[in-house]
Amino acid sequence: MTYFRPNIQALSAYIPGEQPSPETKVIKLNTNENPYPPSPKALQVLRNIDGELLRRYPHPMAETFRQAASQAFGVPPDWILVGNGSDEILTMIFRGFAEPGRKVVYPMPTYVLYRTLSQIQDAETIEIPYPEDYRLPVEELVKAGGSVTFVVSPNSPSGTQIPLDLLDTLAVRLSGVLVIDEAYVDFAETSALELVKKHDNVIVTRTLSKGYSLAGLRLGFAIAHPHLLSGLIKVKDSYNVDAISCLVGAAAIADSEYKNANAEKIKATRSRMAHQLQELGFKIWSSQANFLLVQPASTFPHNAESLYQNLKQQGILVRYFPQPRLNDKLRITVGTPEETEALISAIAKF
Amino acid sequence: MTYFRPNIQALSAYIPGEQPSPETKVIKLNTNENPYPPSPKALQVLRNIDGELLRRYPHPMAETFRQAASQAFGVPPDWILVGNGSDEILTMIFRGFAEPGRKVVYPMPTYVLYRTLSQIQDAETIEIPYPEDYRLPVEELVKAGGSVTFVVSPNSPSGTQIPLDLLDTLAVRLSGVLVIDEAYVDFAETSALELVKKHDNVIVTRTLSKGYSLAGLRLGFAIAHPHLLSGLIKVKDSYNVDAISCLVGAAAIADSEYKNANAEKIKATRSRMAHQLQELGFKIWSSQANFLLVQPASTFPHNAESLYQNLKQQGILVRYFPQPRLNDKLRITVGTPEETEALISAIAKF
Repeated sequence: MTYFRPNIQALSAYIPGEQPSPETKVIKLNTNENPYPPSPKALQVLRNIDGELLRRYPHPMAETFRQAASQAFGVPPDWILVGNGSDEILTMIFRGFAEPGRKVVYPMPTYVLYRTLSQIQDAETIEIPYPEDYRLPVEELVKAGGSVTFVVSPNSPSGTQIPLDLLDTLAVRLSGVLVIDEAYVDFAETSALELVKKHDNVIVTRTLSKGYSLAGLRLGFAIAHPHLLSGLIKVKDSYNVDAISCLVGAAAIADSEYKNANAEKIKATRSRMAHQLQELGFKIWSSQANFLLVQPASTFPHNAESLYQNLKQQGILVRYFPQPRLNDKLRITVGTPEETEALISAIAKF
Repeated sequence: MTYFRPNIQALSAYIPGEQPSPETKVIKLNTNENPYPPSPKALQVLRNIDGELLRRYPHPMAETFRQAASQAFGVPPDWILVGNGSDEILTMIFRGFAEPGRKVVYPMPTYVLYRTLSQIQDAETIEIPYPEDYRLPVEELVKAGGSVTFVVSPNSPSGTQIPLDLLDTLAVRLSGVLVIDEAYVDFAETSALELVKKHDNVIVTRTLSKGYSLAGLRLGFAIAHPHLLSGLIKVKDSYNVDAISCLVGAAAIADSEYKNANAEKIKATRSRMAHQLQELGFKIWSSQANFLLVQPASTFPHNAESLYQNLKQQGILVRYFPQPRLNDKLRITVGTPEETEALISAIAKF
């Protein structure tokens, strides 16, 4: 006996990466957090929050953040929709566009949450395999006929950047909505943001969890034509962004200098780490994100799962995905130079 | 041409109460905020938040808050599900139980968001009229056959408390889930919390927005049997509660002494305000919440809508609902004694 909808009863919950308590001493390279602290300017705003701000309901559209994001990205405020993490933006998108009889399409492997969100909406889920080199399978994605199609760029867990011209072509050829999930764009060379001005069916999603070191704050946003945001606003909770996140996030997003300086450090570490792992015989995918997808050589003393377990025993958490095409690989976040050195020497000792 | 699901395209967005910016000097009696500041202990926790907490993802189940709520209410932690405001809890409930072909039932007038959430799920919405005295229409609610039935207690906008024995009877006789929305319980004499232990189909929802003066923080929770929470956990966003809200809310909910002292002040003001408005010829519904539903006498120089507009011109915001059965009444939040005096003298001058 269950009270739930049949699809919910049948659903396996999405399992996020392990989150050890903040007191645990661990080198945490499993959920792509930024190793550097949030902007001092954002933390200064946090120090000055007063009780009156908390007593009252916040602005329904997180206006202060929206204005700051508008300035930072050169798009009008009404082209921006703010969410409780970009996960909430994705939830709004599924509630707006997906239902039984409508198709949700994305290339695989990618962010595994899409499958869960599609099942919650009881939509038809169509997963198109990426080729081994992670070139975007435009033709197959178009043929699948999604009401909504998701492309992560840079993609997780491959780290690969999707060329702008392919996304442009995809936007033109799709009859439904194209969501470009740019969670990792702060570590990439290019963005697809200009496509929202060119196409009325493109939504770009962003987060402050990675580039801005604010995963604990839960703040993300969508950029799209106001007509496309109008339906998402209808399905969002009335006061979905709290008053603190709105103000702290606004200060963080205005401090692009600090964010960019950290991103440059991470990109430099990423290059060294890729080089060192290649020297240890690992296969590496070319990454534009703050992580690397890596595959131990067949001659390495441990397979991916065993390497994950052994690193965990030494207090180094990396991400292992027990699923086809990924269960012989690991996704490792780019940490500080010190964390990366500790990882490399642990691996070198096996 | 629309990309949205037809029910979303057709939907009118829920319109929350007016939220003037925090700088605006206004006596704000329209959205039932608590007039007193949040607990000093909660604000002290806020002062000590550090950047490392924000850099990392928060606990997926907001464990620190869950433990504090478990202590405060004497229920095991796994009977508690924490949300980004109780609105997010309601959203999870709709996503878990409501879909086309399933019925969502509630008595009217009540919290108007239920209708919007039901339409988003494309469920069949059945609204049962309350009688004029707001006695719960148990028989009609049972006959309606909801997959999920909502009762707000104390109800908004009537302020009326639903007797425990009627909720108990309703829980027994319903074949679906009964949600008891206790957003205003901190100003009432009784709670229906004991029913979650007695019935496996009862969910009690709570918020920190009213009794705890934390509307800006966005924190609410559900209490129910773990089997009933299991499906809701599947539909919630992975990290739905931010790290700050979790810790600040935990301190607030532990400080029940402070919360209760404010509630006593508000209840005393509520009595005086009801008495004064009755002397001015208003009809008053007996309220166990932090607001009053009031109806101007037919001899009063303004009808409800005109009174709302005139008060607004004098910098006093109250809530006017332009809908059947409510468009001749106002819902007025109980503020501080000073705010209430200002309201009463403004009305007395008409």
